[in-house]
Amino acid sequence: MIYGEKRVERPIRWAMVGGGRGSQIGYIHRSAALRDFCFELVAGAFDIDPERGRDFGKNLHVAPERCYPDYKTMFAEEAKRDDGIEAVSIATPNGTHFEICKAALEAGLHVICEKPLCFTYAEAKALQSLAEQKGRIVGITYGYSGHQVIEEARRLIADGALGEIRIVNMQFAHGFHNVAVEQNAASTKWRVDPKMAGPSYVLGDLGTHPLFISEVMLPHLKIKRLLCTRQSFVKSRAPLEDNAMTLMEYDNGAVGTLWSCCINSGSMHGQKIRVIGEKASIEWWDEQPNQLRFEVQGEPVRILERGMGYLHDTALQEDRIGGGHPEGLFEAWSNLYARFAEAIEAKEQGKQYDFWYPDIYAGVEGVRWVEHCVKSADLGGVWIDYE
Amino acid sequence: MIYGEKRVERPIRWAMVGGGRGSQIGYIHRSAALRDFCFELVAGAFDIDPERGRDFGKNLHVAPERCYPDYKTMFAEEAKRDDGIEAVSIATPNGTHFEICKAALEAGLHVICEKPLCFTYAEAKALQSLAEQKGRIVGITYGYSGHQVIEEARRLIADGALGEIRIVNMQFAHGFHNVAVEQNAASTKWRVDPKMAGPSYVLGDLGTHPLFISEVMLPHLKIKRLLCTRQSFVKSRAPLEDNAMTLMEYDNGAVGTLWSCCINSGSMHGQKIRVIGEKASIEWWDEQPNQLRFEVQGEPVRILERGMGYLHDTALQEDRIGGGHPEGLFEAWSNLYARFAEAIEAKEQGKQYDFWYPDIYAGVEGVRWVEHCVKSADLGGVWIDYE
Amino acid sequence: MIYGEKRVERPIRWAMVGGGRGSQIGYIHRSAALRDFCFELVAGAFDIDPERGRDFGKNLHVAPERCYPDYKTMFAEEAKRDDGIEAVSIATPNGTHFEICKAALEAGLHVICEKPLCFTYAEAKALQSLAEQKGRIVGITYGYSGHQVIEEARRLIADGALGEIRIVNMQFAHGFHNVAVEQNAASTKWRVDPKMAGPSYVLGDLGTHPLFISEVMLPHLKIKRLLCTRQSFVKSRAPLEDNAMTLMEYDNGAVGTLWSCCINSGSMHGQKIRVIGEKASIEWWDEQPNQLRFEVQGEPVRILERGMGYLHDTALQEDRIGGGHPEGLFEAWSNLYARFAEAIEAKEQGKQYDFWYPDIYAGVEGVRWVEHCVKSADLGGVWIDYE
Amino acid sequence: MIYGEKRVERPIRWAMVGGGRGSQIGYIHRSAALRDFCFELVAGAFDIDPERGRDFGKNLHVAPERCYPDYKTMFAEEAKRDDGIEAVSIATPNGTHFEICKAALEAGLHVICEKPLCFTYAEAKALQSLAEQKGRIVGITYGYSGHQVIEEARRLIADGALGEIRIVNMQFAHGFHNVAVEQNAASTKWRVDPKMAGPSYVLGDLGTHPLFISEVMLPHLKIKRLLCTRQSFVKSRAPLEDNAMTLMEYDNGAVGTLWSCCINSGSMHGQKIRVIGEKASIEWWDEQPNQLRFEVQGEPVRILERGMGYLHDTALQEDRIGGGHPEGLFEAWSNLYARFAEAIEAKEQGKQYDFWYPDIYAGVEGVRWVEHCVKSADLGGVWIDYE
Repeated sequence: MIYGEKRVERPIRWAMVGGGRGSQIGYIHRSAALRDFCFELVAGAFDIDPERGRDFGKNLHVAPERCYPDYKTMFAEEAKRDDGIEAVSIATPNGTHFEICKAALEAGLHVICEKPLCFTYAEAKALQSLAEQKGRIVGITYGYSGHQVIEEARRLIADGALGEIRIVNMQFAHGFHNVAVEQNAASTKWRVDPKMAGPSYVLGDLGTHPLFISEVMLPHLKIKRLLCTRQSFVKSRAPLEDNAMTLMEYDNGAVGTLWSCCINSGSMHGQKIRVIGEKASIEWWDEQPNQLRFEVQGEPVRILERGMGYLHDTALQEDRIGGGHPEGLFEAWSNLYARFAEAIEAKEQGKQYDFWYPDIYAGVEGVRWVEHCVKSADLGGVWIDYE
Repeated sequence: MIYGEKRVERPIRWAMVGGGRGSQIGYIHRSAALRDFCFELVAGAFDIDPERGRDFGKNLHVAPERCYPDYKTMFAEEAKRDDGIEAVSIATPNGTHFEICKAALEAGLHVICEKPLCFTYAEAKALQSLAEQKGRIVGITYGYSGHQVIEEARRLIADGALGEIRIVNMQFAHGFHNVAVEQNAASTKWRVDPKMAGPSYVLGDLGTHPLFISEVMLPHLKIKRLLCTRQSFVKSRAPLEDNAMTLMEYDNGAVGTLWSCCINSGSMHGQKIRVIGEKASIEWWDEQPNQLRFEVQGEPVRILERGMGYLHDTALQEDRIGGGHPEGLFEAWSNLYARFAEAIEAKEQGKQYDFWYPDIYAGVEGVRWVEHCVKSADLGGVWIDYE
Repeated sequence: MIYGEKRVERPIRWAMVGGGRGSQIGYIHRSAALRDFCFELVAGAFDIDPERGRDFGKNLHVAPERCYPDYKTMFAEEAKRDDGIEAVSIATPNGTHFEICKAALEAGLHVICEKPLCFTYAEAKALQSLAEQKGRIVGITYGYSGHQVIEEARRLIADGALGEIRIVNMQFAHGFHNVAVEQNAASTKWRVDPKMAGPSYVLGDLGTHPLFISEVMLPHLKIKRLLCTRQSFVKSRAPLEDNAMTLMEYDNGAVGTLWSCCINSGSMHGQKIRVIGEKASIEWWDEQPNQLRFEVQGEPVRILERGMGYLHDTALQEDRIGGGHPEGLFEAWSNLYARFAEAIEAKEQGKQYDFWYPDIYAGVEGVRWVEHCVKSADLGGVWIDYE
Repeated sequence: MIYGEKRVERPIRWAMVGGGRGSQIGYIHRSAALRDFCFELVAGAFDIDPERGRDFGKNLHVAPERCYPDYKTMFAEEAKRDDGIEAVSIATPNGTHFEICKAALEAGLHVICEKPLCFTYAEAKALQSLAEQKGRIVGITYGYSGHQVIEEARRLIADGALGEIRIVNMQFAHGFHNVAVEQNAASTKWRVDPKMAGPSYVLGDLGTHPLFISEVMLPHLKIKRLLCTRQSFVKSRAPLEDNAMTLMEYDNGAVGTLWSCCINSGSMHGQKIRVIGEKASIEWWDEQPNQLRFEVQGEPVRILERGMGYLHDTALQEDRIGGGHPEGLFEAWSNLYARFAEAIEAKEQGKQYDFWYPDIYAGVEGVRWVEHCVKSADLGGVWIDYE
């Protein structure tokens, strides 16, 4: 149970690139980072418009001289300060992640990066090497994975409660972009522009979320080959897809599906994962994130609830309030940011830690998966080996 | 609203092949057929064990002399009677459907046949020709399609409430056969024996149900090509599958998925269909068959309920009790059997009728779809044209 | 599991009073009675309009000469026949139940009567005496109680799975009469006329249903005192109530609530019962009648499903199809009618039986409860002893 | 939409009394207050054990010299500082609220107080007078009321979407205290001790929450009289109740029920409110706080979702992330604390504001309601006028 006591000796000095006024994702980064003294927001290059960025920073109580016009200036100027930033979060359009992440690592900063880490597997591996070489933490904000019952699922599966894993069904299928909303919404516009969004839209923007959750729940399962088809139902989005279906075969003989979609009219989020084993299944839905269905064949379905004593210890330790009270997405992100902070502190102090978080390898894996999906789809929806 | 008054001038004289003691499916056939004076059970070849079949028939108040040892005898003997049977239902293992159906049609009987109609598209087309030539009705018991809100969905879609159709997601994925229950359960044993079950297990046994519902809801949508993968997670079932995923492309550019599965541990039925249009989606789940979700993008989800005045007239006319009271699968079947009876009467009287029911063409289509799925799967999960 | 084989040696010769064309309740009586050869409909006084009743009977294949203009004629004429009726169902407006039931018993008939049995406790006791004296069965159509998971709840409670019972919360609160629909709907009109409906509307029409379910689940719990308030939100309904809340204290120290309402706008049925014990609770909702929530404190909620092997034997024996397939209200009624038939046969043959059904004592209890509620409410909502 | 920009010119200097290590409620106060620069935690008397309190404060980065042994010292010492506290939150056992709240107001502080404000209506009115006289804000943490769809319900009702209000059904009925957990849990122990908890347990601890939500949704509805019964099913809790049912009559003729319970075995929170009008109903459940059911009689039920454009503007302005993403209880509290801060700033600057929050009058009303309930119950469950 978390009571808000500090998790690291002192808050980590932290900045943001992007995430300025009007950015929902920027706010959830800050809300999570600043919780419980994990990070301290001391600088930022919040906005492509420096003036607006400075005004925004002021409203976050960031000193005006540390509201920078761009990330390069920020990294350079902060490096000169004794109390310069130690970590940076990147919440800019996808097309800029690679260069900013690279620059941050080269500047010796720890990085928290929005997914996707970058556009190509080669780039991703390069960032991985750089992070390893520099000894820096890279966290990826697969925020949903921070919900505590995801950990419970991981532990149930590790205990063998499901038996041999056979099927993994995933989806992230919302309906908010059923028409060309990007014509009026800047926040969507760049997502359907290959220059800014990269080689895919919904595969990268949506699909990688449940994919990472599957990696958390099923750390030993490896994709052997996959097949993907994708469509642009709103035609102006081509070549980027607004719907995709990926089939996967895993090395243990299990199979998987992942439906990525932003034109699922009338659906809210529609992010779900169902892991089916020989004996039992678990199912989780991100719109009711405090519950986990545990379904043993031949027994009544059980609804597991966050915060209850029957859960595994590791699924309880990040509770902020008792069961029955709904925690939400902000708590999931807070859990991850606290782990980012603890990982950074441990790295700085040369200590070990025994918790997982969406790290550079998760980031690399997401890029790799999208790359394979796009390749399969562009070849006409054929099976390709996962390598 | 139905009050139980007769739907046909006199009950149609009717017999069953199979469906004896211990057959759940046999009972639902009888329960539906005998409701509201549509059919009258006057004969039967209920059981492969003639003695047991006769005893069973006695408990259904069938005259002992009309409890026959086999269908051939029954067709022959009944043909000699002035009051001989006019229609027969076939509820035997799949491998016998073709020959019994063929014999029944040749005997001039109307037929209600369990799905699958037969094993091959060629056989199916032969039965279709025979039925057309003989002027006999063939009904297929895609029983779930008789739920009234399926008709409501059909009408909503026809009205354009969803806009252009983009995605059709279907599943019938239960968990009852997660292990080799067939080793102890005769009712499952034949289902995993290719000789008795045909070229597939779950594709034919489960998948064709939501497939037919999609045909009811979307009569104009035609499959252009499909891809299927299938697995035998219980290894002794090979070559028959206990899990399959089918991807479909339709002629209007829409795409579809159909998940057929009997190893979905912990799930009850898991039969669902979601039709996604440009403007809205509808979703139906057979375990709560009185409800239909209608989800217009940008509006609150609406839960439509059977029996309510806001539904289309044709979705109300088969109600047997007011909204709020749950009707179940028996009512869905009763609706179909009543239509079978009315279609038979109309056919006999040379009259037209304006209602749909799962007819010979639906039966042919199911066989055709399974054949294509199996072919695709056996080629390694490749796209094949639907022809 | 029921396969439709006969439950009684020969179908009981049966008639209806009321329940003619346009009566939903009439149809569910017939649909249940005629199922599986329990009863045979041979006569009727279906309608207050003899001509319409005869036409209706004809469509039920009842011989025209046995379609009677009124119940008195029917009882008299049938008594003259060797093959005269043995049992009769009464589906007329409430105000006529007493006299018809009395006449039927005096004619030596077994009776199935719609609730309420009559209007006063004194009358009810008189009918009870008459039934005992005549040795006839009186069944009351508390139809919801026939759902199999009600029996499961009864058995779970008998097993002590809930521990000491503390609270029983009940409701039957629909919204269909939020405005004065009775001005246009004959089927509602009589319900709000004290002459026809008796001393109450929703208490008797709705509240007695979950009350009886509580009696089934908790046979040993006895009401000690109760308090009731009632309102007529649609003013023209006064003195009959369209909303009522009853508080109860039981002899073991438990407490109960029962909310009866027909102005619960937007609600479908809203019939629920929750029994709370020291260790666990169960909850049932009649709109999803195949499920039973079983909630052990400190454990995950379990959703019990009809038809599953983990249920008690007696909760499985009336299944008509496997779990996962929804049974509906018609099956619940069929279960009760089958027990009525078996009880009648046993009574005629002087045999014992070991099953429960809503009998004359249940009918008496419902009348008694309404009488106490009305008295309490009319005294201003005060506690009155239950005697 | 909230992006985290400051809501007040500068964070309000703030302290806590109570809420130390091991206090869940303490954490949610801090988490809400510290969000988005509304308050700054500069002092505290966190714990009855000064040493432990100081250690705890240190982990919250509170200066050691401002971690006080008790509230009196804190108020006295802080008053001497130029940068002394301006506001204080009280998260101590109920029995101390009155004296601390009084002392804080007398020290010129703004107060945020856990409910109940105090034990008697007379005390509550005294605090109200003191707050008015001192010109200080008193906020009460009816935290659930901060969920945005509560505001939506308020606006829908104000618009007349429900028509005349007829029934208000409320409950807060969890199962966590089905046995005498207080024997092992200090956090529960004081709640069942009249000295510490006051005249009631669940009425005050639970029932006042949905009561306040009803006041938010229905500002014009006034209780005319009420009746309450209460029980101590865990006998050692007597005279404090662990279950209570309150019936209410409102001045417009509407009626209400409020079920307060901590022995509802197997239930998680069970906090719900349903407001039934002539035309429609709304229903809200705190375990799925992002949804609001809107049920118009004769139309399909609509599920309203937080964050969607069809909601009222005032129900959207506190969103922190788009619809579909679950916000939780922490956001609801954050919304209230932000309003507390804005109200404090407005009060200090002599400005008006046009938003509601649970203020001193809400606190007084809760105490008044509990006092009436207890009185009714102790008189045997009789109607008493609400005055």
